[in-house]
Amino acid sequence: MDDAFLEKVFNGDIRSVARAITAVENGGDGASALMKAVFPRTGRATVIGITGAPGAGKSSLVDKLAWYYKDAGEKVGIVCIDPSSPFSGGAILGDRIRMATLGLDKNVFIRSMATRGNLGGLSRATVDAVAILDAAGYSKIIVETVGVGQDEVEIVKTADVSVVVLVPGMGDDIQAIKAGIMEIGDVFVINKADREGVLRTQKELEALLSLAHRPDMWHPPIVPTVATESKGVEDLATAIDKFVGYSSRAYAEGISERKEAIARWRLLELLRERLLSDLLTKNGSEDALNKFSVKIAQKQLDPYSAVEEMLSAPPAVAGG
Amino acid sequence: MDDAFLEKVFNGDIRSVARAITAVENGGDGASALMKAVFPRTGRATVIGITGAPGAGKSSLVDKLAWYYKDAGEKVGIVCIDPSSPFSGGAILGDRIRMATLGLDKNVFIRSMATRGNLGGLSRATVDAVAILDAAGYSKIIVETVGVGQDEVEIVKTADVSVVVLVPGMGDDIQAIKAGIMEIGDVFVINKADREGVLRTQKELEALLSLAHRPDMWHPPIVPTVATESKGVEDLATAIDKFVGYSSRAYAEGISERKEAIARWRLLELLRERLLSDLLTKNGSEDALNKFSVKIAQKQLDPYSAVEEMLSAPPAVAGG
Repeated sequence: MDDAFLEKVFNGDIRSVARAITAVENGGDGASALMKAVFPRTGRATVIGITGAPGAGKSSLVDKLAWYYKDAGEKVGIVCIDPSSPFSGGAILGDRIRMATLGLDKNVFIRSMATRGNLGGLSRATVDAVAILDAAGYSKIIVETVGVGQDEVEIVKTADVSVVVLVPGMGDDIQAIKAGIMEIGDVFVINKADREGVLRTQKELEALLSLAHRPDMWHPPIVPTVATESKGVEDLATAIDKFVGYSSRAYAEGISERKEAIARWRLLELLRERLLSDLLTKNGSEDALNKFSVKIAQKQLDPYSAVEEMLSAPPAVAGG
Repeated sequence: MDDAFLEKVFNGDIRSVARAITAVENGGDGASALMKAVFPRTGRATVIGITGAPGAGKSSLVDKLAWYYKDAGEKVGIVCIDPSSPFSGGAILGDRIRMATLGLDKNVFIRSMATRGNLGGLSRATVDAVAILDAAGYSKIIVETVGVGQDEVEIVKTADVSVVVLVPGMGDDIQAIKAGIMEIGDVFVINKADREGVLRTQKELEALLSLAHRPDMWHPPIVPTVATESKGVEDLATAIDKFVGYSSRAYAEGISERKEAIARWRLLELLRERLLSDLLTKNGSEDALNKFSVKIAQKQLDPYSAVEEMLSAPPAVAGG
């Protein structure tokens, strides 16, 4: 990680930024050295997390929001977390499609994050990628999740502002996810607001929000949008700005629980990854893992006993 | 974990089964001892993983499928993974609603899984809960995800058969998730098949499936259902049976990559959790974690350096 390369990243050289993000995806020592240099340069960007069910039109909304910021003279980074990418490079295809419409503009950087190997670390790598874009001078960074699982919710919670995208009449499963999204949304969007059922969804949401007790006393606004027609995008940008202003004033008065919780989560993610990777890079560990996997599959051993053997015995003799 | 308690679990005593699942949610030594006893009793149940976007009607479909199996004289376990539960007990509310219609029957056991604390382990606990239900004599165990994130996809992949639920006209995000669901679905359901656009969705899906190359040469069937009217539920059960029969014949001929991959994933999940929990239960680690979180939040230290300090220094003097 030489200084000339770091300089290029900090100057926003697109190829160097892309290389740096690949380094944090790969993990290991390279990622560690890089992130130590990057960290002091972060904290200038506004990080916007966007989540919501597949089919809610998040991609279109993100694209239109990025356009809006770009037209306002900002440098925009988009980081997309796509659970399909480990399987078949779906994310890369998605990137290409979007680059054709939005990219090719030097002020917009789009990247989908993929896990490499089975050591995980996607959440950590995503947060690192955001830090790199921040250090590289991107002033608005949008983190978009394709899925809405527990990892994705955690990642969106690390943003400066979390936007939850709903659509009218989401059906019977909304009941189940309401409780969760209630507490991560700083701003709510009802997209596809040209469909019927908008008012009902809005009223239901308002009723739920009125019951919520946020420690920061913020009342999350509800913004109707029609992303495909760019309707409501400016309202969304305004709502985002308002919350960022509100929360930075709150922080100035000492309410930094959110930042501390994020730091703690990052530490735990990194510890989890490092501990496992330290163990697995030990001589013989990979063999032990393979041997125990076969034994468990054949029901000769349970996973708990296998883990105890792996952690107690020197890897070279384990599973013999 | 006394023998009398284990005996009750293996005899399917509902309160003991519930207590056992709580023990694996809590993790630690209790979970470990329990699971070592449970593991040899597993392998009799058919585990059915069901995933798909929120709004696809998964809950209704799962309920109807459970009814179908119950009427056929089977004992049915339902394990629901709900990302909202860590926030506000949404899962528990969901349980109560479902228990009112489906539960109260001693042959149906419903449980939503929740993370406790920030050590994670939800994926591991879910797979353990399935093993407990298996050992307790439940012959069909349905694992249902509310979210569709990377963790949820991993969990569904541990089932004997994975069912992916789609709805007609899922919108612009389906493009992005297609690649991922293509490879986890052994059976596809198009639910809400009374809506328009069923044929188009079916044709798109067939086109995609014809391009897929499954190592086991299985051609995933597409089953149209209207879960709210119980239509297509029997067809779904038949499709599930067919795949289970097909894959058990494939295993008999030595194709056990799937079982080994699942065993490997379980080992890694358990290692990740154990390593972190071993570190954090060390004297002083919690203090170090808190101190470093504050330092990172205040930008005095980067997370990578903090982790190196935590892993190299004895916890009691770290962060001083």
